[in-house]
Amino acid sequence: MSWEPSARTRDLLARMGSFFDRHIYPNEHRWHAELAARRQAGNAWQPSALVDELKVVARAEGLWNLFLPHPYKGEGGISNLDYAPLCELMGRVVWSGEVFNCSAPDTGNMETIERYGTPAQKQRWLEPLLDGKIRSAFLMTEPAVASSDATNIQCSIRRDGDHYVINGRKWFSSGAGNPRCAIFIVMGKTDPDGPRHAQQSMVLVPRDTPGVTVLRPLTVFGYDDAPHGHMEVLLEDVRVPVENILLGEGRGFEIAQGRLGPGRIHHCMRSIGAAERALEMMVDRLQDRIAFGKPLAEQSIWHERIAESRCMIDQARLLTLNAAHKMDTVGNKDARAEIAMIKVVAPNMSCKVVDWAIQAHGAAGISQDFWLAEAYAHQRTVRIVDGPDEVHRNAIAKIELGKRAAARR
Amino acid sequence: MSWEPSARTRDLLARMGSFFDRHIYPNEHRWHAELAARRQAGNAWQPSALVDELKVVARAEGLWNLFLPHPYKGEGGISNLDYAPLCELMGRVVWSGEVFNCSAPDTGNMETIERYGTPAQKQRWLEPLLDGKIRSAFLMTEPAVASSDATNIQCSIRRDGDHYVINGRKWFSSGAGNPRCAIFIVMGKTDPDGPRHAQQSMVLVPRDTPGVTVLRPLTVFGYDDAPHGHMEVLLEDVRVPVENILLGEGRGFEIAQGRLGPGRIHHCMRSIGAAERALEMMVDRLQDRIAFGKPLAEQSIWHERIAESRCMIDQARLLTLNAAHKMDTVGNKDARAEIAMIKVVAPNMSCKVVDWAIQAHGAAGISQDFWLAEAYAHQRTVRIVDGPDEVHRNAIAKIELGKRAAARR
Amino acid sequence: MSWEPSARTRDLLARMGSFFDRHIYPNEHRWHAELAARRQAGNAWQPSALVDELKVVARAEGLWNLFLPHPYKGEGGISNLDYAPLCELMGRVVWSGEVFNCSAPDTGNMETIERYGTPAQKQRWLEPLLDGKIRSAFLMTEPAVASSDATNIQCSIRRDGDHYVINGRKWFSSGAGNPRCAIFIVMGKTDPDGPRHAQQSMVLVPRDTPGVTVLRPLTVFGYDDAPHGHMEVLLEDVRVPVENILLGEGRGFEIAQGRLGPGRIHHCMRSIGAAERALEMMVDRLQDRIAFGKPLAEQSIWHERIAESRCMIDQARLLTLNAAHKMDTVGNKDARAEIAMIKVVAPNMSCKVVDWAIQAHGAAGISQDFWLAEAYAHQRTVRIVDGPDEVHRNAIAKIELGKRAAARR
Amino acid sequence: MSWEPSARTRDLLARMGSFFDRHIYPNEHRWHAELAARRQAGNAWQPSALVDELKVVARAEGLWNLFLPHPYKGEGGISNLDYAPLCELMGRVVWSGEVFNCSAPDTGNMETIERYGTPAQKQRWLEPLLDGKIRSAFLMTEPAVASSDATNIQCSIRRDGDHYVINGRKWFSSGAGNPRCAIFIVMGKTDPDGPRHAQQSMVLVPRDTPGVTVLRPLTVFGYDDAPHGHMEVLLEDVRVPVENILLGEGRGFEIAQGRLGPGRIHHCMRSIGAAERALEMMVDRLQDRIAFGKPLAEQSIWHERIAESRCMIDQARLLTLNAAHKMDTVGNKDARAEIAMIKVVAPNMSCKVVDWAIQAHGAAGISQDFWLAEAYAHQRTVRIVDGPDEVHRNAIAKIELGKRAAARR
Repeated sequence: MSWEPSARTRDLLARMGSFFDRHIYPNEHRWHAELAARRQAGNAWQPSALVDELKVVARAEGLWNLFLPHPYKGEGGISNLDYAPLCELMGRVVWSGEVFNCSAPDTGNMETIERYGTPAQKQRWLEPLLDGKIRSAFLMTEPAVASSDATNIQCSIRRDGDHYVINGRKWFSSGAGNPRCAIFIVMGKTDPDGPRHAQQSMVLVPRDTPGVTVLRPLTVFGYDDAPHGHMEVLLEDVRVPVENILLGEGRGFEIAQGRLGPGRIHHCMRSIGAAERALEMMVDRLQDRIAFGKPLAEQSIWHERIAESRCMIDQARLLTLNAAHKMDTVGNKDARAEIAMIKVVAPNMSCKVVDWAIQAHGAAGISQDFWLAEAYAHQRTVRIVDGPDEVHRNAIAKIELGKRAAARR
Repeated sequence: MSWEPSARTRDLLARMGSFFDRHIYPNEHRWHAELAARRQAGNAWQPSALVDELKVVARAEGLWNLFLPHPYKGEGGISNLDYAPLCELMGRVVWSGEVFNCSAPDTGNMETIERYGTPAQKQRWLEPLLDGKIRSAFLMTEPAVASSDATNIQCSIRRDGDHYVINGRKWFSSGAGNPRCAIFIVMGKTDPDGPRHAQQSMVLVPRDTPGVTVLRPLTVFGYDDAPHGHMEVLLEDVRVPVENILLGEGRGFEIAQGRLGPGRIHHCMRSIGAAERALEMMVDRLQDRIAFGKPLAEQSIWHERIAESRCMIDQARLLTLNAAHKMDTVGNKDARAEIAMIKVVAPNMSCKVVDWAIQAHGAAGISQDFWLAEAYAHQRTVRIVDGPDEVHRNAIAKIELGKRAAARR
Repeated sequence: MSWEPSARTRDLLARMGSFFDRHIYPNEHRWHAELAARRQAGNAWQPSALVDELKVVARAEGLWNLFLPHPYKGEGGISNLDYAPLCELMGRVVWSGEVFNCSAPDTGNMETIERYGTPAQKQRWLEPLLDGKIRSAFLMTEPAVASSDATNIQCSIRRDGDHYVINGRKWFSSGAGNPRCAIFIVMGKTDPDGPRHAQQSMVLVPRDTPGVTVLRPLTVFGYDDAPHGHMEVLLEDVRVPVENILLGEGRGFEIAQGRLGPGRIHHCMRSIGAAERALEMMVDRLQDRIAFGKPLAEQSIWHERIAESRCMIDQARLLTLNAAHKMDTVGNKDARAEIAMIKVVAPNMSCKVVDWAIQAHGAAGISQDFWLAEAYAHQRTVRIVDGPDEVHRNAIAKIELGKRAAARR
Repeated sequence: MSWEPSARTRDLLARMGSFFDRHIYPNEHRWHAELAARRQAGNAWQPSALVDELKVVARAEGLWNLFLPHPYKGEGGISNLDYAPLCELMGRVVWSGEVFNCSAPDTGNMETIERYGTPAQKQRWLEPLLDGKIRSAFLMTEPAVASSDATNIQCSIRRDGDHYVINGRKWFSSGAGNPRCAIFIVMGKTDPDGPRHAQQSMVLVPRDTPGVTVLRPLTVFGYDDAPHGHMEVLLEDVRVPVENILLGEGRGFEIAQGRLGPGRIHHCMRSIGAAERALEMMVDRLQDRIAFGKPLAEQSIWHERIAESRCMIDQARLLTLNAAHKMDTVGNKDARAEIAMIKVVAPNMSCKVVDWAIQAHGAAGISQDFWLAEAYAHQRTVRIVDGPDEVHRNAIAKIELGKRAAARR
């Protein structure tokens, strides 16, 4: 790729690459073994000891809070374009992001509080998050409605004196499985009868508030993703002080718009990293396996799939870097077509590449012995997370239709 | 579909359909709950109490051993074409087959022993299998080689006096997780230096033979499919009497060819049943969910997917019934193109339909709350089981190339 | 295919196959040369002398008017299922249908007059058509509106005393390029303010009526398909006696529905015939051409395409025969889902197979030296003719949605 | 796209865009009418009077020979990256390139002579070509062999004293239909028994040399592309002086490699321009046409296709610009993976977008009234020209396999 990374990115990439070689790849087996042992012992929902160890090392090596877009107390201040290639690398190992305090949904939540929070909110929640002491969740999707249309969200946030009283049922609250997850950002309606885009607000809800119940983990194609998890959470007459609102009543949509862009770059670059890893595994396996008298790597059917994978991956990466650059230069709003485009392109691409890699591995590819089955489930999930393909394609089409309507006027 | 089922099939379908309405669908939740409770209690690998109950009912209603192609002691004698629609129905609920003693791999194993076994082998193993007292596994695939090319199979079956001594490592031995699984059919090499298709033999190995170790379950995209399971099995100096060979030394390929046809009809019809169920769920969900002001069912993008699903399902069914009919009339060997075709078409179709159904469900579709996530994993697996797509496409192409070469001579 | 053709079809197929071997394939070059010579001489729009010769032979051999569904004066009376395989054969050579007086749109027009015409209309137009003396066109599609929604049709048919006065502009009036084309069936509005499906009527308009102007041929991807042609026709104050109406005012939709089914079976079976021929050519070429040291036929990428072609063709044929059988047994109306399905499936399939065959031929495949380029254009056209894919998919989806809505009530 | 064009490109794009608005788009109808009139009059193979007129204007406006990579007598010297966006613009109207003396195959031929020719060869052929006085053709592909493997080329170039004697049959010699086409670059074997990549040479053959016969035009899906044409050329004992060789005997491959890169950038950018135009036409048509009560543009099925088109086009453009940049910075050889990738991606993308645009237009889309049918034929052709997809995918895969093999050593 000729889109040369900046000097800063090259440096970070080199150092993080070295960290992966020393600390991440060699510990992949240990990570799974640790989790399996805890599961066997009856409780998989505990923070990873391995990750805790590595966080210390990563922080000491200056690989910490890399994602932070605006400077905060001396840290952060990286552009989307510069950060993107680091996400690609972290996409190769699903648990690696937390080691660098760069894992979703904490990155988005930290960014949200940094951008829209009051000084008091920042001190209370942003600082321990940046410190890696606590974790957070974002409670948006609801089981009862098509949440792809955010105006459908039903959770009630009713003002009662100096408090908000919250009632609702959320699910797929990722990260809420971790016992360290201490703070939820909850989206709900403060003004259910208001104008369509001014009904929603976001409120900070400490997990230990009475009325909050983390009901159960949802699985993703059979994976519970412990200890992170995707939880169903019940909110029953949960009371939080009015100071816990973010930005103000009716501004939930505005925050949602602001936070979405970077998160999508991250998702997409991680998908690209996953696809690169799958392609490597596919190529290696094909060279190693013999069938019908020759290595599978000599079959032209695999040449087609390798070539198509390379073409799809490189295109998705260029498109995503282009979107990141556009966000950096003209802002999230004017880059909304580009952001919608990558959200469709990247996970569909990675699903396809992982699918081929599985096929190249035969039964091994669907088992726990290779990372591919897990990647297949995760990448398929990305096509739904943060809005299903259909919603993004619709947005892209609307912009195209608008452009031509304007041109012909 | 105008290809009218026979009177016998219509009767069986009606009765089995009624059984599903009374005993299967209403118990789906219980089945999962029972398994979850056992897993919670520390051992998921126990026979299902629900299935045990229902087996008694099914047998009493004459819905037992329906699959059996040749009559044996008064039971069985159904054509592939007549049995196929019943498989479609059983494909809707993955655990339902065992209720009717019609579940893989037992069906294939029973058929194999019935067709190729000695009277003593039949009495010892076929009868308790037909009686539903024990279960069986088929040990073919090996982790160390590309098993899609069956000549790669390395397991050694060495004659030593009146015994065979077996050494090898097998995996994805489906059904071996069930504690009632008492008998393995093992494929391996009795003559590693013989002609390519005469090296392999099949031997009956009781699971409790010394040297047999069921090592661990393999997962399929995160599912361990307990209590059935897909196990890794180690065979170390396992000794069985020479009488345990099936058909004779060097005839493993011959048996494999003979057993494969019906199994593929079953797999494919189950995939078609799964796709039908997914389409129903998709259509229902689309009618129930509102986004951006109207039911999803009014979006033409979903019309396209519903229509394509219907077209693909109906084509796959006609193709599979056609293959079944050809097997019934000209035999497995002359129907090998048709059998290879359905093995490619049906699971690729069902993967696609299930994928769309998931997308219609949003996050719900990938969770444990709907059957779709499980179906997605299982249907993807069928593209590898019994030979990956690539091997079957290759076989089809060879036949086409041969036909034209002959026509031009 | 195990769906055995009837004895009648087997006999007709055998005799028509022999006719192709003796008279059609050997004359393909002559047909093109004759047309090229006429084009060179300045007028391609003349009936083919070759076809005229062969019509005499075909009639003498009893291969004449085979399509006719209901008996008329001793001829005809064939089911859709029995006629379909003959269409497949005729689909291999685009001009062959006329040799047997079985070419579109004359078949549909003859069927329409036979079914809905008065005795006088039959005598005047059906008989010379059945005799092969004249040809006909069907004037439906209009350039000014989306004709896929037939209620959009704007052509005005105004009653004026004992006459209808017709004004409109039609295009893609296939067959109107032939100077022998003597009669048009024109669809237009007799009651523009009536109920949506009662506005349209069909009227017989002799081509030589004053006010009729055949303006120009439309091309189809560069082909003008002379001498048949797809013409733009202007109708200016064209007066025909009221006796020329078919069935009655406001019954245009009813006739359109009745005529569409068989025509779609014919289109689809011809597409299947074209795909079979393309697959044969692909396979032959791959066996003949050497690149990078071995025949292309040994490349597994081509095995995949050959196999997929065979799977797609066989599925499309089974689906089409199934639709034909359903039309024969429950009628066009109850078979409308099946008819819509084949109209989507068959031409999309043939486009794909022809595309691969072209790729196998390299530059030769897009030239006039092989039949493939022409087939590529024609098969792509079928996806639009008689309603674009989108309209048919919509119809299929509506039926599925209705089925489930009914089931859940 | 954030990949900002350089100041030079922006200036050229602005001026060429203005030229299109003033002289190209308004004359599209005239171009076709002129050709139709000549065809009607019996000879379509004459230079376009319109193009001759516009060439004068373009040259006067400094829009001439823009493609020239290396400076020659004061003209040229543009990078691939800077030239690429101009190709995209010219891709919108197939005949526009010649207006700017930037049309294939003349650009490649001029570049070849400029790069590898002797001063005498340049004076004799390059200068009149740069002057737009004559045109040229490149005679490579042969009907008798799979020319995708260039070592298959059979044309004989035998030294006989001070001359080469050339015998062979070439086809798809584009541009040779133009009566001004005065010079052919012929690829053939000077050393048929030499090492595989040293057998071929390139020789300059004036069209009027005795023994040269331009036999006939090949059509491309029914289009003869007059007056440019794709001709079959017979070379019988054609004698040219030895000075006519390019670079030296046995260096044909070397030249072919050198010339291919830029040509592929041009092809791909033109395909991207064609796709952009098709998308515009699709969007416009969808907004203009009403069916079933609303504009087609409100159907979500079209949202999906518009969005997918935009995603595919932007990705293909970024990939192609990336390849151009890589060629500019590391050279054609090290950019060979990137060049192969765009050659697969761009035309497959444009075929898909044009196909959707046609479907949006209904019957109009396949007729001569819209540019789409022509574009469909041309874009399909690009998948074969300069090597079929299969050859490029193979090359990409080989590079990937090599990278991993090296990484694992």
